[in-house]
Amino acid sequence: MGGPVGGSVDVVVVGAGLAGLTAARELSTAGLRVQVLEARDRVGGRTLNHDLGHGEVVETGGQFVGPTQHHVRRLAADLGVPLFPAHDDGDSVYVRGHRARRFAGDVPPDHLALPDVAMTMLRMNAASRAVPVEAPWEAPRAAELDAITLETWIRRTTIGSGGLELVNVLLGSAFGATAAEVSALFALWYVAGAGDAEQPGTLERMIGVAGGAQESRLVGGSQRLSLLLADELGDRVALGRPVRSIRQDRDGVSVVTDAGTWRAARVVVAVPPPLAARIAFDPVLPAQQHALFERMSFGSLMKCEAVYETPFWREQGLSGQGVFRGDAAPVCSMFDNSPPSGTPGVLMGFVGGAEWRRWSVRPGRERRGAVLRSFARVVGPQALRPLDYLEQDWTDEEWTRGGPTSVLTPGVLTGIGRWRDVAFDRVHWAGAEHAHYWNGFMDGAISSATTTAAAVLEEI
Amino acid sequence: MGGPVGGSVDVVVVGAGLAGLTAARELSTAGLRVQVLEARDRVGGRTLNHDLGHGEVVETGGQFVGPTQHHVRRLAADLGVPLFPAHDDGDSVYVRGHRARRFAGDVPPDHLALPDVAMTMLRMNAASRAVPVEAPWEAPRAAELDAITLETWIRRTTIGSGGLELVNVLLGSAFGATAAEVSALFALWYVAGAGDAEQPGTLERMIGVAGGAQESRLVGGSQRLSLLLADELGDRVALGRPVRSIRQDRDGVSVVTDAGTWRAARVVVAVPPPLAARIAFDPVLPAQQHALFERMSFGSLMKCEAVYETPFWREQGLSGQGVFRGDAAPVCSMFDNSPPSGTPGVLMGFVGGAEWRRWSVRPGRERRGAVLRSFARVVGPQALRPLDYLEQDWTDEEWTRGGPTSVLTPGVLTGIGRWRDVAFDRVHWAGAEHAHYWNGFMDGAISSATTTAAAVLEEI
Repeated sequence: MGGPVGGSVDVVVVGAGLAGLTAARELSTAGLRVQVLEARDRVGGRTLNHDLGHGEVVETGGQFVGPTQHHVRRLAADLGVPLFPAHDDGDSVYVRGHRARRFAGDVPPDHLALPDVAMTMLRMNAASRAVPVEAPWEAPRAAELDAITLETWIRRTTIGSGGLELVNVLLGSAFGATAAEVSALFALWYVAGAGDAEQPGTLERMIGVAGGAQESRLVGGSQRLSLLLADELGDRVALGRPVRSIRQDRDGVSVVTDAGTWRAARVVVAVPPPLAARIAFDPVLPAQQHALFERMSFGSLMKCEAVYETPFWREQGLSGQGVFRGDAAPVCSMFDNSPPSGTPGVLMGFVGGAEWRRWSVRPGRERRGAVLRSFARVVGPQALRPLDYLEQDWTDEEWTRGGPTSVLTPGVLTGIGRWRDVAFDRVHWAGAEHAHYWNGFMDGAISSATTTAAAVLEEI
Repeated sequence: MGGPVGGSVDVVVVGAGLAGLTAARELSTAGLRVQVLEARDRVGGRTLNHDLGHGEVVETGGQFVGPTQHHVRRLAADLGVPLFPAHDDGDSVYVRGHRARRFAGDVPPDHLALPDVAMTMLRMNAASRAVPVEAPWEAPRAAELDAITLETWIRRTTIGSGGLELVNVLLGSAFGATAAEVSALFALWYVAGAGDAEQPGTLERMIGVAGGAQESRLVGGSQRLSLLLADELGDRVALGRPVRSIRQDRDGVSVVTDAGTWRAARVVVAVPPPLAARIAFDPVLPAQQHALFERMSFGSLMKCEAVYETPFWREQGLSGQGVFRGDAAPVCSMFDNSPPSGTPGVLMGFVGGAEWRRWSVRPGRERRGAVLRSFARVVGPQALRPLDYLEQDWTDEEWTRGGPTSVLTPGVLTGIGRWRDVAFDRVHWAGAEHAHYWNGFMDGAISSATTTAAAVLEEI
């Protein structure tokens, strides 16, 4: 760990994920003295590279970049990190029960479910347009939409269970939760944010590969953005410094860690809201803001990746993408996650929501077998013999405890959602959960940091 | 604060509320060396007496005792604390918009809403019988009931909005939440627990005064139970000792506070689950248990009390009880909360859920005026001039942060509810949220402590 054990600066930033580092960079550039305090012994938060050897890495956390994600694109360009297209050529495979069928395009070939799926997607897109991203509680019928689960909302217009089941597969990866847990208003707001001021959000852009949020990846892995930012900031980033308490008085703020206390005029807390609620604030957080942050629980998500000598599925005309319906497989959806060179070949599967609950408690060996069998359903039995297999369960990470982002339950958004970004005297908030557009994504983390840094500069 | 600054015992108990103190007493009686560590500078947790002078007190936290609450009755008898009936003579008043109407009995005279209210109560009672209190996830159609909000469940069979609105008034006090926030399965399970093994729970017993959970009070105030238990335990209770981390190794557990570390063979954590999730566990809490505890957020509730020379309303044939429908008043429901002598007179109003969200952020002066005007609607303008006025907002208490208890959102009970009472190696759980019957009540706190103490004794 090492580094300073306390001091006096203009702004302390809590958390060295993309938001914290971006805020620190912008505040430093403006001439302020900044100290970033990070609990982990690394930077990057929910982005994390895994070393594959031979100079290649694979991402085990947030990794994709898509159209309308202007902030992450700008930062990547600024840091000299190129994008490359996620592998999307070839057929995908739809696995349902004992059957596995190849298909082209975005829509799984489930003819019984198709009308419900299509209708659900159309309705979600249409309904989300009425939800203002800056103030979802002002949507028409906001209270009504926030008083039901997304499952209730979907069931109202679908005929069979296909629409619901497929949406649950998608949500398993996107939210780490099921439609039963989520407020309908929250889900519609989340879709509304999958765009920008010119292009309204759509479910397709949120979940899609080509033309969607999974379209591109960052050369060298997504964590590289944070690593480069931290390099720039140098000793202004201190690792292994979990912040235990934040004490405000008339003259400033004291930020207390186990190894030193920092004094500042302002603080930017850039950690997930449920973790922010665990910090001992003195005076205590306003009750409504505490209630909100506590309720911004993350979904449950792990990533399982298998490494092969080559992406052998490409030769068979397969994209490596798979969609799993039903509850036999641990994997909800999977992707070709090979590095841009194409060597080695990597398959990545999301295990989220209900599947995570079922599979995260099984012995690792058993889960590995089930995940590899899932992969084999999509790309064939060669998947059963990887060179390497790795898992990243974000729910086990003390400084994240879930993934990928906050998922709001009924009543929260309309009841106390207004408190999300309200500064608590000298304490400001940033992070993926504090963004209007692309909330929960890398892009949202960066845009929220820019907004918050500007607010801090105005106050100082 | 004072007291010991560390040591070695058989069992450390975290939290000196009713559950922690009961567990400590039972473990001590069995011959174990016990240390209770309490964050606050007082005992009693969510029970708290306010001194009215002249030897009289009034309760500002949990206070009522009802039929089938065998554990709290037994403890009170054991400690020599008599019960007395909550004042229930005379008419109650139903306030709706500009009208206030007296009524006798339990059911407000709202003839338009009545059919819906009656139907909703009957259905809740009937449906709750199918929910096993020990394992609500095994109820018939559990997944379906846990995928909808209570509001959705109520709307399915009611005609107007009366049933829903009145249930929301009741829930405002009982849960500090609205039907829109709560899982239907959770609400039915909660009703199922308002009884005992012989007498199935009913909504009437849960919310009623005569024959219900608000039937009796404790002479000297409910906190007296904890004060007497703490007297018995003597220096085995240390105040001002927030537990920051709990570290388990092969040989035992270290419990770390800012002033000393205690070493023990076992630990009983007897604090609300969301606060338990804030403790830094090493190794970390199992992900599913952490996810559950984090999601067991408390409702939002404050109590407002006005003190008068006498309970003047009794002379007018009024019970002092009032039910408020609609959103004009901060108060959801109110009670005569005078001490058993009848002097002074005290009125107590609950401000919970949606009303709490609206009113807790207003200036204290404004809220005081609005609460007193609510009281005046029920007992007349004399209510506007109290001798004293006090508020207890449990959401502002750092070591409670809500009230009265955990309220579960859709999907949680069926998804991860099984993790509620599972011991984490040497760490056991107790508290009102860990009970089968009368979960969230004083009775549940005590019964859970008895169960947990027995489990610890088996292990040691």
